[in-house]
Amino acid sequence: MKKLILDVDTGIDDAMALAYSTGTKEIELIGVVGTYGNVNISQAVQNSLNILGMIGKTDVPVYEGASHAMSKSSFTPSEAGKKIHGQNGVGGVDLPQAERTKENESGIDFIINSVKKYGKDLVIAATGSMTNLGIVLKNYPEMAKEIGQIVIMGGALTVPGNVSPFAEANISQDPEAAKLLFESETPIIMVGLDVTMRSILTQEDTQRWRKVSKAGKDYADMVDYYIHVHDETAPAINGCPLHDPAAIAAVIHPEFFDMLPLAMTVETEGPSVGRTIGITDKIREKAPNVKVCINVKERAVAEDMCNVMATLYANVK
Amino acid sequence: MKKLILDVDTGIDDAMALAYSTGTKEIELIGVVGTYGNVNISQAVQNSLNILGMIGKTDVPVYEGASHAMSKSSFTPSEAGKKIHGQNGVGGVDLPQAERTKENESGIDFIINSVKKYGKDLVIAATGSMTNLGIVLKNYPEMAKEIGQIVIMGGALTVPGNVSPFAEANISQDPEAAKLLFESETPIIMVGLDVTMRSILTQEDTQRWRKVSKAGKDYADMVDYYIHVHDETAPAINGCPLHDPAAIAAVIHPEFFDMLPLAMTVETEGPSVGRTIGITDKIREKAPNVKVCINVKERAVAEDMCNVMATLYANVK
Repeated sequence: MKKLILDVDTGIDDAMALAYSTGTKEIELIGVVGTYGNVNISQAVQNSLNILGMIGKTDVPVYEGASHAMSKSSFTPSEAGKKIHGQNGVGGVDLPQAERTKENESGIDFIINSVKKYGKDLVIAATGSMTNLGIVLKNYPEMAKEIGQIVIMGGALTVPGNVSPFAEANISQDPEAAKLLFESETPIIMVGLDVTMRSILTQEDTQRWRKVSKAGKDYADMVDYYIHVHDETAPAINGCPLHDPAAIAAVIHPEFFDMLPLAMTVETEGPSVGRTIGITDKIREKAPNVKVCINVKERAVAEDMCNVMATLYANVK
Repeated sequence: MKKLILDVDTGIDDAMALAYSTGTKEIELIGVVGTYGNVNISQAVQNSLNILGMIGKTDVPVYEGASHAMSKSSFTPSEAGKKIHGQNGVGGVDLPQAERTKENESGIDFIINSVKKYGKDLVIAATGSMTNLGIVLKNYPEMAKEIGQIVIMGGALTVPGNVSPFAEANISQDPEAAKLLFESETPIIMVGLDVTMRSILTQEDTQRWRKVSKAGKDYADMVDYYIHVHDETAPAINGCPLHDPAAIAAVIHPEFFDMLPLAMTVETEGPSVGRTIGITDKIREKAPNVKVCINVKERAVAEDMCNVMATLYANVK
């Protein structure tokens, strides 16, 4: 069975991605690496531990990754991030404190050792900043060819970004790291706003979770917070986009998506910093390393995730 | 049989689109409307007349359209345009002067009358600036629903533009007109750099044309000029992109292309003026008016066009 590492800045949609990935039979979650983005690194690690504890997945280790962008010396969560995910990153919900604590091994080392151990059987889903992957590829460029698959939630190809007309939030956290990643030979599936803004979860969905268990109710409380924020900022959606869960769906159900093979780069300066765009000179490459998800079956991600999570909630108190 | 109007700024690739469209059995070319862009309007009209004369299609009328952008009062061809298409727009080749002259009816009126006459049976392929269509839609917005299909060569969705990192040349001539067009309810197929930079004609192809007839030789001379310009500016292509012919291919062979349904707009100000991009708020529309060609079978456009043109050349002196 393929092995999965989740590289997350947990975050409400990361919390859904965590549950979704642990509940599928297609892949084994061997570890979670925290990163900064929606929240700072220590909050991301703690939220990941709490979430895994809450859904009874205490066998999954959590590692601490990079705390800031490659070209910066610190990170402070944005006001927008605090609004979207709440001050504690999980919508202000008071999750039970996990008994398990973070591992001593660094998240970067865990990724490097896992590439060495599992090679082509390893899938890394990165749904926060791309810094951890950027650091790995900068120090071990040869690993680009050794990793089985990287799936990222990040970028926007056919629609504008969400932090600028050009940049999506995860890419904008560390455009240099994202550029390193895209321009490496790593096989990448890009799950960007092109498909996540088409993958909507509604309050009808979360309403069903409440009845199943305490874990289901806690998840519903988190996600309802997230839906309410979107009711204010993007009422046309009538729900919330499934940004990070869509990346998990692309791992286990690629058939949900239309994918465009495209050699890509990330702009790292100027007004369009953070823009993810094809490279014209490489447009005729036979097998470019990136496949961009450009369309998705409506409701496919939401329905599959809800099915997985219903079972998961039923199996915990 | 469907009726076709070609709206062109002839131009070497427009000259290929003209031949390609007259030589197919799938559609009847009922008229050509000149526009500005690669050359000024009078040159575009004269080049179109000369080309049609040269390939024995003297039954096709040529009309004069808009001479400048909707928001401007004049147009001067760019130095880049003169370099790419030659001072006379046809690579400096001295084409035989046509006996037929332009029609008295204006190109705009011809389009309007054709929409009234043919409605859903009318296809308009616009491979220059979008000004003629912008003027029609501004004055007769209801025609958006009456036109059968508009196919444009213009824009870039998945790769940067060719006159700026954001804007493709035809769109950049008149972004306001293009925005009017995209945001109307007209059914549009966008054939942009995404696929035209994947559709390459080589000197091996043009070499075969030389042997067929004088018309074949004249076409080869024009297109070889165009290929040589690209040898300097974009040597990796090893040929020339089939910008305008790809729009004809999308009319008669949509199966060559992968198309993404997407509600789109055109940016009309700021650093990214001329950018063609999806509208996030409309991303979940069931039947958006635009289909963007995002991939194309390699060599399909070149081979089909060459087949059509070989027959055409053989039938003229």
